[in-house]
Amino acid sequence: MATNRQVVLKSYPVGEPTAANFEIKDAPIPEPADGQILARTIWLSLDPYMRGRMSERKGYADNVKPGQVMVAGTVSQVVKSKNKDFHEGDYVADYAGWQSYSLSNGMGVRKLDPARAPLSTALSVLGMPGMTAWYGLNKIGRPKAGETVVVSAASGAVGSVVGQLARLAGCRAVGIAGGKDKCDYVTGELGFDACVDYKAEGKNLFAAIRAACPKGIDIYFENVGGDILNAVIGQMNDFGRIPLCGMISQYNATELPAGPNWSLLLVKRLLVQGFIVSDHFARMGEFIAEVGPAVQGGKIKYREDVVKGIDKAPEAFMGLLKGKNFGKLLVQVADDPTRK
Amino acid sequence: MATNRQVVLKSYPVGEPTAANFEIKDAPIPEPADGQILARTIWLSLDPYMRGRMSERKGYADNVKPGQVMVAGTVSQVVKSKNKDFHEGDYVADYAGWQSYSLSNGMGVRKLDPARAPLSTALSVLGMPGMTAWYGLNKIGRPKAGETVVVSAASGAVGSVVGQLARLAGCRAVGIAGGKDKCDYVTGELGFDACVDYKAEGKNLFAAIRAACPKGIDIYFENVGGDILNAVIGQMNDFGRIPLCGMISQYNATELPAGPNWSLLLVKRLLVQGFIVSDHFARMGEFIAEVGPAVQGGKIKYREDVVKGIDKAPEAFMGLLKGKNFGKLLVQVADDPTRK
Repeated sequence: MATNRQVVLKSYPVGEPTAANFEIKDAPIPEPADGQILARTIWLSLDPYMRGRMSERKGYADNVKPGQVMVAGTVSQVVKSKNKDFHEGDYVADYAGWQSYSLSNGMGVRKLDPARAPLSTALSVLGMPGMTAWYGLNKIGRPKAGETVVVSAASGAVGSVVGQLARLAGCRAVGIAGGKDKCDYVTGELGFDACVDYKAEGKNLFAAIRAACPKGIDIYFENVGGDILNAVIGQMNDFGRIPLCGMISQYNATELPAGPNWSLLLVKRLLVQGFIVSDHFARMGEFIAEVGPAVQGGKIKYREDVVKGIDKAPEAFMGLLKGKNFGKLLVQVADDPTRK
Repeated sequence: MATNRQVVLKSYPVGEPTAANFEIKDAPIPEPADGQILARTIWLSLDPYMRGRMSERKGYADNVKPGQVMVAGTVSQVVKSKNKDFHEGDYVADYAGWQSYSLSNGMGVRKLDPARAPLSTALSVLGMPGMTAWYGLNKIGRPKAGETVVVSAASGAVGSVVGQLARLAGCRAVGIAGGKDKCDYVTGELGFDACVDYKAEGKNLFAAIRAACPKGIDIYFENVGGDILNAVIGQMNDFGRIPLCGMISQYNATELPAGPNWSLLLVKRLLVQGFIVSDHFARMGEFIAEVGPAVQGGKIKYREDVVKGIDKAPEAFMGLLKGKNFGKLLVQVADDPTRK
């Protein structure tokens, strides 16, 4: 008999999450009430921000409490509908969490057309990560042709789109990524102008970035923090912009390290703007209208790293925080009928 | 016989400047060539940014080299003119440096009308410091009525104007200053809603700021850096703005201390924007049109700390970096004929 398989938070991690922080359990598949839909999860997105929710520390959104299902963006198919706006068989993007079935009243649920783009892209290049790249680069960074844009975690779901959008805007795109395979992908497949392998460079990181950015750095799209931030900030040009999107190097930190001294921000008149894309979801239509055609036309490429089966989600998530994935990390919870 | 008395940089300071870093010397009074004016300095402005110029470290403007006259904004009277735009007796604001006479070709020299405002205000509330306050608060901070604005170095030339402009914009204005006299002045004379004495509070600084800002902090106008920055940033509201104007606590530092961790900037979606007012001097007219009437109408008050005689400039400047002045620090180099 089918059940609703769920991954719930068992306890708050201290430092890196371990398997013991999660519990996999089976619940009955719920019945939709009037106005509700029941959807079956096909794709489940794993993203670094989830680490922040596994915490008692106040964050920018509600935390997950022990006993609750882990949060996640999802692509699902409606299996029962008591809501006139949705029909059985509809594909939808929702925020259903780490579970194989979910109920919703339809609020915030977005219908997907599988003929337009593969369903999974609603969680990657045409979903939250892609919109994060678009918003941060274009609305905060405001690239001008001829400028140099650096992005950390460059092979990831956000970084890969940042660099490709920067290239389309006429900028030099320089990635920072860990390992030769990722860097080869960033310059080869994605077409960045250069990529710095921070693992290989080690203490040479500053010099390697300088060599890759002979005209300095105008925009740094920040995903990681730590040593990479320190190496980049010293090479920013006057009036540079830093869209601050993530601090993945610190998400498992039990004590937050100090940041760079602010004198550089002053002397160089830098802009730093922290942002969370969900504050700007009202602009999703604008984003899809701008970036959708470039994806469909092959001008923006993307890569997915697919893990099969919801039971694998905790392990995949732990790997994500260590940079083990290569491309947008997705869990395939059920077969995707639209995928050949 | 009259001479051109000058203060030149003798050597770069290491840490705090000392008298040995300056040399006072007499040069002949120069003769203007065609197109030039000779002006006699009346008022000389001493400002924290000058410490940054006494350095080999790359800064945002040309450094002063040993043997060169120290830089400063000045108010002078034209004593000889071979430039058709200026006449003997004109009062002008210029950037003539620490000397009692100066030549100029008229570029960037602004005529002053002593009937409109006291001449010295061209170096304080209606000059560079006032415009710094106006630009940073209004163009970066963008205050909305009901918000809370915190400013450090609140009794100083910039901070005093920030808080008064914030009040005029309908905000709660909270100052941070060192010592009871300064705090009394900030809340009494200047009309701030509250002022935190960082010297008296010591390790209690965080709690004292919290008590003064019961609704959190929306704008932090940053002049000082260090412990005060760390105490404030933890209490910023979501979507707060930080115009970054100065780091006076670090100007004498031989090694730059670390800054706050950036996770707070991200989680709270803060904006930090470093700025230097001279980048925006094209807007001086806009500033004077907006703020001039408020000064003339007594809605914006100011205080000057006047030191008499150019020979006292080095000592006064060293005191400025320790917060010894109270009000805009000015050196009166010659009698001001317009002052009763």
